[in-house]
Amino acid sequence: MNFNMKEAIEVLERTPQALEFFLSGLSDTWLNCNEGEGTWTVTEVIEHLIELENDAWMPRLEFIIQEGESKPLPSLDRSSHINERSSIEQKLIEFKTLRTQNLTKLKVLMDTELNLELTGLHPRLGIVKLRELLSTWVVHDLTHTAQIVRVMAERYRADIGPWKEYIGILKK
Amino acid sequence: MNFNMKEAIEVLERTPQALEFFLSGLSDTWLNCNEGEGTWTVTEVIEHLIELENDAWMPRLEFIIQEGESKPLPSLDRSSHINERSSIEQKLIEFKTLRTQNLTKLKVLMDTELNLELTGLHPRLGIVKLRELLSTWVVHDLTHTAQIVRVMAERYRADIGPWKEYIGILKK
Repeated sequence: MNFNMKEAIEVLERTPQALEFFLSGLSDTWLNCNEGEGTWTVTEVIEHLIELENDAWMPRLEFIIQEGESKPLPSLDRSSHINERSSIEQKLIEFKTLRTQNLTKLKVLMDTELNLELTGLHPRLGIVKLRELLSTWVVHDLTHTAQIVRVMAERYRADIGPWKEYIGILKK
Repeated sequence: MNFNMKEAIEVLERTPQALEFFLSGLSDTWLNCNEGEGTWTVTEVIEHLIELENDAWMPRLEFIIQEGESKPLPSLDRSSHINERSSIEQKLIEFKTLRTQNLTKLKVLMDTELNLELTGLHPRLGIVKLRELLSTWVVHDLTHTAQIVRVMAERYRADIGPWKEYIGILKK
């Protein structure tokens, strides 16, 4: 096991601004490309990060602290909150603002000696620990950052010509 | 084909600062982890980006403009340039500085109506076009950014517990 709260927060507090720097001002061709039907665009990934910032990470952590395993974690309301008409820059600021609020709440809880071994009941996965929820929050940031750059790389699959032999991300 | 010079430069000019924002100040545990023996750490990926910024992209582009297919592109000198003892912050600044210099050179060449269909001779891949070299530069940024976040996510493979079912990046 490698989870460490200080190191986890290092990643969580960097993701929104790194993505903001990388994506703000990009052409729509980058932001609206996907990997084929039924896959997400870069913009949709950011909307997903906003959704989970609203509904999943801190709400679930607080629910586990209050309810333990007595009630299953509420399902995510996947249709809520997102203003699809806002610009990518507005979405990135929204993500950053929500993340900052959530990390502020998390740091307050840490001052109360948060017990990372507390357990809750996930409706599909069964018993889950706070430690696992926090680890997943970090990995989720990393996963979707990887997805964003993979989706963008896919646009140039044909353009790189013979170099495709050397480029691992496009071998799938 | 999707390559477009303006859009390619959008990515190339963002990568160094996005990585600088994401990686500066991270704990060594993040920077020095890898995916097992013979794989790269985050720090080694940045060193690789510096190497290719020195040796590959603009030098090859200039070589193709000068020599066409008359001589093969020089091999990369993979042992040069890198000061392994510098901090990650120093390496990220070096990458950003080299990238800025290279994009300045590229923009000067663009003013001379650079012919993207010019061809050179790659020692292993055969005939390559300027357009393909430039596309590969972009995809290479994206590939190694994906690698960085994948290496970091790997550290928490065991920590996320039952959530591994939902986390695609760790399924391999």
